[in-house]
Parts: sequence; structure tokens; C-alpha cells
Amino acid sequence: MARWEPNTRARLELAALELFVERGYDQTTVAEIAERAGLTKRTFFRYFADKREVLFGGQDVLVRLFTEGIAAAPEQATPLETIGAALEAGSVVFEQARRALSRKRQVIVADHRDLRERELLKATSLTETMREALRERGVPDTTANLASTVGSLAFTAAFERWIAPDGNPDFAALAGEALDELRKSVTELG
Amino acid sequence: MARWEPNTRARLELAALELFVERGYDQTTVAEIAERAGLTKRTFFRYFADKREVLFGGQDVLVRLFTEGIAAAPEQATPLETIGAALEAGSVVFEQARRALSRKRQVIVADHRDLRERELLKATSLTETMREALRERGVPDTTANLASTVGSLAFTAAFERWIAPDGNPDFAALAGEALDELRKSVTELG
Repeated sequence: MARWEPNTRARLELAALELFVERGYDQTTVAEIAERAGLTKRTFFRYFADKREVLFGGQDVLVRLFTEGIAAAPEQATPLETIGAALEAGSVVFEQARRALSRKRQVIVADHRDLRERELLKATSLTETMREALRERGVPDTTANLASTVGSLAFTAAFERWIAPDGNPDFAALAGEALDELRKSVTELG
Repeated sequence: MARWEPNTRARLELAALELFVERGYDQTTVAEIAERAGLTKRTFFRYFADKREVLFGGQDVLVRLFTEGIAAAPEQATPLETIGAALEAGSVVFEQARRALSRKRQVIVADHRDLRERELLKATSLTETMREALRERGVPDTTANLASTVGSLAFTAAFERWIAPDGNPDFAALAGEALDELRKSVTELG
């Protein structure tokens, strides 16, 4: 019996989303998610701390990718160019094949205050990741703060366009566009 | 018997904070908070939906003040000047006498993930309030988005300085300073 399960995490995420859509988030138990995925409850808890977390696994991956993207940016890159590198590095997560799932996930999260709060906490930790990575490159506090927040706005805008029914499936391109728009609007702040 | 209680809300907030500091947030019940304030549990629930909300009443006041501040800003004010007017209008909440209480509140919120999540949700609704108010003034979406986010960063920075032990007690001045710093750092984004 092979104990190695390359897709365990993805299977649990998919099973959870299916059940949340079919029955509602509150009406679904961890036991049911595990069963739908053909796994045990114990296995579920090896991957996720609780039912809520099964919706947020992607965010931890993004934290890692953003950090790597910023570290790999050329030394002379400006703060916003560095943020652009982070978003580009993170965009590998947003494969075409994940769009339908991401849309379903958004509906579930938007419907539930606890989930929206968790989403915000994760988004904040993503912004903090960018801020810390900029500060480590020697960007002054206020600028790092502002640049990471602009990065977060660009990310959110790109994501909203990416999951839109007729959206461009190229997340990296959308993130670049959103960042450019924000860069331009900076001159209109007054 | 006078049923009119001008300070009911404030008494409940103070009693709750005292108990959270003494016993911890999780160990305190709504019944205990009401009792400490010399009121009934029923009265508590007339003011707050749940135990958590007793820590967040101030945010609803800020939403109102920010909205009023933005509406009252001169027509020709730039987006950031308009945000400055919002922060100034909101600063009346941050009276010298509230600093000690605010500090205690921060410690309780910071210690508890559920409370941090609620805090983020409230902060987000504050940012959205500013964004909507700017859009109603005809500021384009991306600029309104950016300006309100800058406002939120200024607000957070001012608040952190205001509750610092040796902080300036003049919140409006701190908010103005923080906004100026952000305005300057905009040119360093690249």
C-alpha cells in the first residue's frame, strides 16, 4: 500500500469545495470532507488545522512565492518594480485550470463573515510579507509600507479580474496592468 | 426610576475592559460585564450583538465621522486633502482621557486571533467608507482605492503613535504628520 499521496492536499481542498457548494459551509463536517476525498479525518488534520483552513492553503504558498520573488528582484529595482516581481512570482498559482474552483471558493468566503475575516487576516499577512521583504532590501519603513499596500491593491484587482467570467486568464499580465494603473493614479492623489 | 442612561454604552465598555484585563477575554462572560456595570444582560444586548462587539463600538462612530468629514471637505480638495479632512473629523474620538483605555484594548485585541480578525474587518470597512465617499465626490476608482488605503495607513500610524507611552496626545496632529510622510514617500515608489 502506497502511503505516498502526491495529491492529498488538493484532493481534500476539492472535496471540501464540492461539499461547501452542495450543502453549505456550516452544514459540512471534516469527516464528510475526508470521506468524499477517500481519506480519513486524521489525514485531513495532518494537512489543515481546522475546516476553515482548507479554504486558505493557497495563501501560505503565496507568502513563500512573494518572498522568493522579492529576494530574486535585481538590486537596483525600485520598490514598485520589486513588488511587481513578487506578484509575477506568485502568479504561477493562478493556473487556468484553477479559475472555476477559485470562483466557487470566492462565493463561499464572501457568504460567511468568519471566512471573510480569515481571508482578511491572510491578506494582511501577505502584505506584511511584502513589507518585511522590502525593508530587508533597505527600503525605508513608510515607503515599504506604502509599496506593499499598493502591491496588495494590485493583487486584489488582478484577482477580481482573473476570476471574472470573461476575464483574461493570464494572471501575471493582469497583475502588471493593475500595478501600472496604480502607479499612474499616484500622481492624482494630490 | 430614570430609564434614560446617558453613559450606558461607555459603562459597559469600561466594565468589559476591566474584566478582560483582570480575568482574560475568554474567561469573562456577558453576565459578568453587565453585573460589573450595574446593568442587566438584556441591557448589554441592546447595545452590543455579542461579547466581541463591546471592543469595537468606537469603529462605528469613526465610520460616521469619516463620512461626515469627507462630505464637508471643500469641493476643490485633492483626494489626499479629503482623506486628511476625514482623519481630522475622526480625531475627536481620540481624547486624551481615552488613551489609557485604548492601550489596554490594544493588548487584549492583539492577544486573540478572533479579535484581531474582527479588528481587520472593521478597519477594512473604515477604508471602504473612505473609498465610497471619495467615489461619490467623483474621484476615479483606482485613485479612490489608493487614497483610501493611504488614509488607512496614516490612521494606523497615527494611532500607534498616539497610544505609545510617550506619544503626542494630539491625534489630529499625528494623523496630519503621518499623511504628510506618506505623501512624500509616494515619490519614492518608483
